[in-house]
Amino acid sequence: MFELVREEAGARRGRLQTAHGVIETPAFMPVGTQASVKALSPDDLATLGVQVLLGNTYHLALRPGADRIARLGGLHRFMGWTGAILTDSGGFQVFSLDHLVRVSDEGATFRSHLDGSEQRFTPESVMAIQRELGSDIAMAFDEPVPWPSDANRASAALERTHRWAERCLAAAPGSGQLRFGIAQGGFNRDLRRQSALALRSLAFDGYAVGGLSLGEPKALTLELLELQAGELPRDRPRYLMGVGTPFDLIEAVARGVDLMDCVLPTRIARNGSVLTRGGRINLRNRRFADDAGPLDDGCGCYSCQRFSRAYLRHLFMAGEILAHRLASIHNLFVLLRLMDRIRDGIGSGSLAALFGDLRTEWQSAPL
Amino acid sequence: MFELVREEAGARRGRLQTAHGVIETPAFMPVGTQASVKALSPDDLATLGVQVLLGNTYHLALRPGADRIARLGGLHRFMGWTGAILTDSGGFQVFSLDHLVRVSDEGATFRSHLDGSEQRFTPESVMAIQRELGSDIAMAFDEPVPWPSDANRASAALERTHRWAERCLAAAPGSGQLRFGIAQGGFNRDLRRQSALALRSLAFDGYAVGGLSLGEPKALTLELLELQAGELPRDRPRYLMGVGTPFDLIEAVARGVDLMDCVLPTRIARNGSVLTRGGRINLRNRRFADDAGPLDDGCGCYSCQRFSRAYLRHLFMAGEILAHRLASIHNLFVLLRLMDRIRDGIGSGSLAALFGDLRTEWQSAPL
Repeated sequence: MFELVREEAGARRGRLQTAHGVIETPAFMPVGTQASVKALSPDDLATLGVQVLLGNTYHLALRPGADRIARLGGLHRFMGWTGAILTDSGGFQVFSLDHLVRVSDEGATFRSHLDGSEQRFTPESVMAIQRELGSDIAMAFDEPVPWPSDANRASAALERTHRWAERCLAAAPGSGQLRFGIAQGGFNRDLRRQSALALRSLAFDGYAVGGLSLGEPKALTLELLELQAGELPRDRPRYLMGVGTPFDLIEAVARGVDLMDCVLPTRIARNGSVLTRGGRINLRNRRFADDAGPLDDGCGCYSCQRFSRAYLRHLFMAGEILAHRLASIHNLFVLLRLMDRIRDGIGSGSLAALFGDLRTEWQSAPL
Repeated sequence: MFELVREEAGARRGRLQTAHGVIETPAFMPVGTQASVKALSPDDLATLGVQVLLGNTYHLALRPGADRIARLGGLHRFMGWTGAILTDSGGFQVFSLDHLVRVSDEGATFRSHLDGSEQRFTPESVMAIQRELGSDIAMAFDEPVPWPSDANRASAALERTHRWAERCLAAAPGSGQLRFGIAQGGFNRDLRRQSALALRSLAFDGYAVGGLSLGEPKALTLELLELQAGELPRDRPRYLMGVGTPFDLIEAVARGVDLMDCVLPTRIARNGSVLTRGGRINLRNRRFADDAGPLDDGCGCYSCQRFSRAYLRHLFMAGEILAHRLASIHNLFVLLRLMDRIRDGIGSGSLAALFGDLRTEWQSAPL
């Protein structure tokens, strides 16, 4: 179900077949936390060329409930999305959101951020939830550790993550559902290698690198990513969770990553920020009040084709939510077209030059 | 520029030619207060079949400023709307928003609701603002009176409105810009008649009935509307400002009204309410949590074709702004298709039967 089409300088071009269409990789996945990529309709996403988006098991399980979504025909039908959906396992939310969590080998007990009710996630329950949601790719339940964490803590979490991974695989998948394991290991090189080796012995359809980009230095992120991705099976898709910026995407693909997701493009959009090749700009800035130009010169997105910086600034200042949609469309367009260029470049023989151009183009946009 | 195509039982079917296309009347105009019909893009409006929308002189003059919009190419270009735009004169906002207003024959002085700065609107300045905005239809500056108001107050406001109307006409219109006068008269039959007669002696391109639906009994609204509309020139378009509900639209057209506007469909949408033939419903209600049906059975709008009540309820409960867009699309679709049916029915010979059906259909939806 994963076909490696071409490779060049460590980067991989591939095709991942899912129950809801093919995903051309490397691919960026927009995040639809609560069954909606914020401010966008499914048609907006299809127009942008999105092939796969991410849904959050934690959020959907608490509201509106996985059983309810199952009764309503599954997540695709519920949210009107005909493309592929990857659901995360909730591990990151359970261990990172600000609520008391008690963890044992059995699972994690925590309080809902919505109503304070006690909730319990186990490897089995998390896979059952993802079966009810009907996602195309289900993630194994994992325990990431925060930055900084010492090796003892990271090692304990890693061992538990591996035991949970086996239990996740022992649970029946949904019809046509792929299952990805998540490699952890904190910020320790040996543990990162150890986790990759342990996971690759399990029959997952794909493998994720989890628990990075949590505040550690960027150079360490990239070093651990390169190390761990290099130990994952070559014939399975690799997913780097939770990145990122244009620069992050370039560096991840250069290290053999096939799938990425991040809330960044839609989150910063709601705050008035848009990605441009001259750097990230905030449209609320007064200097855009009379700027008749597009968000980014030469951008082909709907927002840039039809509206000016001055108009979007006005919408943000006036509290008009059309602004959120237009800025989100632009930011997603930027990342998706960046991935298109990279994908087309893999196997061209001049990928290194392309990466050089892209690094220059986007490194100037500190995020 | 206004062609009366057919009449039946007091209702009129017509075509109003503007600098940005023909408006088939009777027509409902969505309100784009701050250069945006809230939550909707210009493409959403075009897809809905909107031919004309309303912009608010008061709001646009304060933010982002009419001079700025003029520099950016006018309101159409600013907001990316190629159809017709009617701008109100700000009279209603100046006299109804909660800020101290001092009025003299010269004009009205008030404080901005945004920053407390002192602002001054005169008939001349209001027409100049609308010239800068470049609207297709500009409204004369008027002084409505609140409900209840006695005849003395209504009479003084009416006299001033008439003097202002003459000054508005003395100002140069924008290129291709039509100008409408506004009849007032408070809640007094004689004053309503007197205002219509005074205004019809002035060479406006159309006439509005202003200052109704401010809290007075519905029967009084309809009586005063019928009385005043009946005194307005037959060969000019008639615009009832600030209504309304499906029922209001039916009753207005039955009394010879050609144009209507109201924030209702988009305002109630943001609150979770949608118009259905079984009555207005609020999607936040728990009873819709598992409702797989469309917002209104048999509705052909995008939202009903693609999503369920359960999904929209979830979006509202989760604070996802896609809900605002989808509910607004539905509510506008309802009013626009209602107007289509009425327009098609005028001259069919069976308009009375259609009105009967529509009253039954929509009277059950108290708003």
